[in-house]
Amino acid sequence: MKPVCLVIGAGAGIGGTVGAKFAAEGYHAVLCRRSDEEGLQKLVGAIEGAGGEATGFLMNATEDNAIEERVAQVEAEIGPIDTAIYNLGAQIGNRSLAETPPGTFELGWQLGCFGLYRLARCLFPKMVERGKGTLLVTSSTAAMRGNAGQHSHAASFGGRRMLCQSLNAEFAPQGIHVAHIIVDGSVDAPDTLGKLLGPERFQQLRDTQGAKDGLLLPEKIAETYYHLAQQHRSVWTHELDVRAHTDIPWFNSSAIARSVASEI
Amino acid sequence: MKPVCLVIGAGAGIGGTVGAKFAAEGYHAVLCRRSDEEGLQKLVGAIEGAGGEATGFLMNATEDNAIEERVAQVEAEIGPIDTAIYNLGAQIGNRSLAETPPGTFELGWQLGCFGLYRLARCLFPKMVERGKGTLLVTSSTAAMRGNAGQHSHAASFGGRRMLCQSLNAEFAPQGIHVAHIIVDGSVDAPDTLGKLLGPERFQQLRDTQGAKDGLLLPEKIAETYYHLAQQHRSVWTHELDVRAHTDIPWFNSSAIARSVASEI
Amino acid sequence: MKPVCLVIGAGAGIGGTVGAKFAAEGYHAVLCRRSDEEGLQKLVGAIEGAGGEATGFLMNATEDNAIEERVAQVEAEIGPIDTAIYNLGAQIGNRSLAETPPGTFELGWQLGCFGLYRLARCLFPKMVERGKGTLLVTSSTAAMRGNAGQHSHAASFGGRRMLCQSLNAEFAPQGIHVAHIIVDGSVDAPDTLGKLLGPERFQQLRDTQGAKDGLLLPEKIAETYYHLAQQHRSVWTHELDVRAHTDIPWFNSSAIARSVASEI
Amino acid sequence: MKPVCLVIGAGAGIGGTVGAKFAAEGYHAVLCRRSDEEGLQKLVGAIEGAGGEATGFLMNATEDNAIEERVAQVEAEIGPIDTAIYNLGAQIGNRSLAETPPGTFELGWQLGCFGLYRLARCLFPKMVERGKGTLLVTSSTAAMRGNAGQHSHAASFGGRRMLCQSLNAEFAPQGIHVAHIIVDGSVDAPDTLGKLLGPERFQQLRDTQGAKDGLLLPEKIAETYYHLAQQHRSVWTHELDVRAHTDIPWFNSSAIARSVASEI
Repeated sequence: MKPVCLVIGAGAGIGGTVGAKFAAEGYHAVLCRRSDEEGLQKLVGAIEGAGGEATGFLMNATEDNAIEERVAQVEAEIGPIDTAIYNLGAQIGNRSLAETPPGTFELGWQLGCFGLYRLARCLFPKMVERGKGTLLVTSSTAAMRGNAGQHSHAASFGGRRMLCQSLNAEFAPQGIHVAHIIVDGSVDAPDTLGKLLGPERFQQLRDTQGAKDGLLLPEKIAETYYHLAQQHRSVWTHELDVRAHTDIPWFNSSAIARSVASEI
Repeated sequence: MKPVCLVIGAGAGIGGTVGAKFAAEGYHAVLCRRSDEEGLQKLVGAIEGAGGEATGFLMNATEDNAIEERVAQVEAEIGPIDTAIYNLGAQIGNRSLAETPPGTFELGWQLGCFGLYRLARCLFPKMVERGKGTLLVTSSTAAMRGNAGQHSHAASFGGRRMLCQSLNAEFAPQGIHVAHIIVDGSVDAPDTLGKLLGPERFQQLRDTQGAKDGLLLPEKIAETYYHLAQQHRSVWTHELDVRAHTDIPWFNSSAIARSVASEI
Repeated sequence: MKPVCLVIGAGAGIGGTVGAKFAAEGYHAVLCRRSDEEGLQKLVGAIEGAGGEATGFLMNATEDNAIEERVAQVEAEIGPIDTAIYNLGAQIGNRSLAETPPGTFELGWQLGCFGLYRLARCLFPKMVERGKGTLLVTSSTAAMRGNAGQHSHAASFGGRRMLCQSLNAEFAPQGIHVAHIIVDGSVDAPDTLGKLLGPERFQQLRDTQGAKDGLLLPEKIAETYYHLAQQHRSVWTHELDVRAHTDIPWFNSSAIARSVASEI
Repeated sequence: MKPVCLVIGAGAGIGGTVGAKFAAEGYHAVLCRRSDEEGLQKLVGAIEGAGGEATGFLMNATEDNAIEERVAQVEAEIGPIDTAIYNLGAQIGNRSLAETPPGTFELGWQLGCFGLYRLARCLFPKMVERGKGTLLVTSSTAAMRGNAGQHSHAASFGGRRMLCQSLNAEFAPQGIHVAHIIVDGSVDAPDTLGKLLGPERFQQLRDTQGAKDGLLLPEKIAETYYHLAQQHRSVWTHELDVRAHTDIPWFNSSAIARSVASEI
């Protein structure tokens, strides 16, 4: 029986591509996403077409017990979850505080932070029993610093980062590898960036920034996710960043904006 | 009319003492706490006895509209809120993931993060209109790093720190000073540490660590809170730490625990 | 006898102004700077004219024993140094790696890092004997992150920040307060920013950004330095930032530069 | 002609093992270390015995032009340097400030920071011409925070981290991948930890902590170094940590030391 790689947030960007990579390396990929049955079946079909194993589920992670029941079902019907990828974002675009009502603020927390807690809470006891397991968490710049328009996103992702450190502190000694992956830039992902920009602007971005490898390529990100899941337990990475070579890191600001202002 | 200093989380530690300091400096202190009417009236009475102005409210900050209605009432009946102190903790002691049920995890977020968002959302528009205001947020080690047993606390406070940065980014240019104060150590506070330890152990700690100024003294912390609220807008501090001189900073570990292990 | 406040790097910006503030509060200010005898005497004269005590020295801090001999002389002839302000910069403008020869890289380290080590090494034993003392270190954005053109500056200031933490770890329990102050923005300082920009551009900046309190005012910074030096040892601040309300913090980037790129 | 992997600091721990890994993957490993000709030839022999290519040099990196001449020679006689590993430590054990004389402080900086600057300054122009190259820098906990006894080590490594960020900012867009690798724990390395502890204590540590994969294994670290060097330029990692699953991360403190003290 193949080890299972469970992906929560499996669109046609990082999530689906990481699932496909693990499937290609011998895992059974279980892909969960909120909507788009057709897109989901396309991902499953592509994996199977390449000789891999995959199962797809539509799932709204914010519903009561949705994550808990899915984990139980997968463990019972498909097999022990060896690796989980938590890939749910909480990005709602830049919004002022006035444009961020309580429901929006809370939804950001549910997707970005509470869902991860729920996944760990139902899955980690099983991994502890087995003495091993991996949880890879896709994160972003917003986990490292708040910014204008990021009230919900940053509060959610900042909490998530501290949660990852807490989970690591309790569970690494019990054999569970938790990694927090800071994706610091635009990903070449049709389901997220593509939808945000619209097809025309997205194509334009691909033709310019993307042509110079300035957009993070999901299949390249997937190699690093896979590497993390294979690290020996004597050398686990808990946190790392990934960004395109041409991108300005989150901790650097535009030379233009600050030049005189802040270096003095 | 005196400027108002609103304290949310006004126990007999940082919150009440900071309120008293502001009252002594000419503010009307509005003290809100969840329970202990007697303790609350004692704080109000002490301020008034010293010639200051104070009003006390019992308030459960997690109830719907509790914060929003209080802010509206204070602005209408007492005066414009010049400075707000957000002093609610989310500390539930060290708890393993198994001992942290969803309701507990969510309560931590409500107290530590969501309540601050709600305060800012109802108060900042008024401050923006007036072109000035101050929000001082009491924080702790858990905002800087997760740790075993801190799943709820760190997730809440890590989000809160990023929220403070987001609020600062949007509102500092509009005249609102947001400061995130990392209280990195034990506070000589009967209502929190005292209750946690019980009277005997608390007295013992005061007699040993406290006797060497090894517990943070609330009335000394209050001086720094007051200084922050007086900083000129050309030199605002957004983040600072405070700790007793004998305490080990959060980013340093015990010499014993790590000595050989990690310096090599 | 008044307590001594020793300022290393006492130009007409933060250094000289902090010295004047401490003098106004009852310290004997000892002002050291590398050049400009006339400017130095002007600072001393202004302090004395206001009824304070001050002594000025020209000193090249990178010369062998310059710091060590000055400290010995001040202690012998003026009095025990209660507070030291280390205010030497290592700013050489933005320079590519090719434009940063070894001598330049090393000079940055000598000014920014090695000089601070030397000051602490000769001064702290005296403070330990007295059971008290304060060291306030002016720092900048470059201590928090490297950036293009900052090879020397950031390497020097990054080392300095870690040195401050090391000094704090050894000496705070022995009564010495070490504080690392991140000045994150342009200071309204004729001797540094003014010389860098030239008189015309500097005046222009004052008339625009400065008119809206967008330049850090040295006399306002000085109030925070003084507050730090008065903090009770149960509540010492080790690190804080100061910036103008309109300035973008170092950890935030220009909305323009990153908007689409990194928030997704 | 094979691509060259230059290792500066090639003992029988991370340096030599990373060199061997790259050699096994098709690089010509150039191993430089300060002393122990016999140990050096053993490493070279082992690589050659496994069918790989290697060249060894004894080199004192702190000597004038030692790094510069070596780089020139390797480029001229062996081939273009594709990947450089900077693996020089600056660890001198825990020393109080009094036990850290100026020469020691400076030596730490030369090994930990200045040498890296010199390597980048002579090597990067060649890599820029070729449009590609990789620099992997072994770092440690001391780059993240100062601590008692770490005055020289932390000042050196803190500067080095900021230097890595500065190099990355200037050179990543020109095709050079700079990665800063935080080795947060004890490495199973006979040439460093082994010598520090002596053979008996080292064996004991291997038999206890090591037996549970609690020491970082150099050959496992080498896999992550190799992965970093193969990352596609659209997804470069600039910083990551590695630690044994049982080790306490630098940002967490021992539960014993802080328990009551700091979580409240």
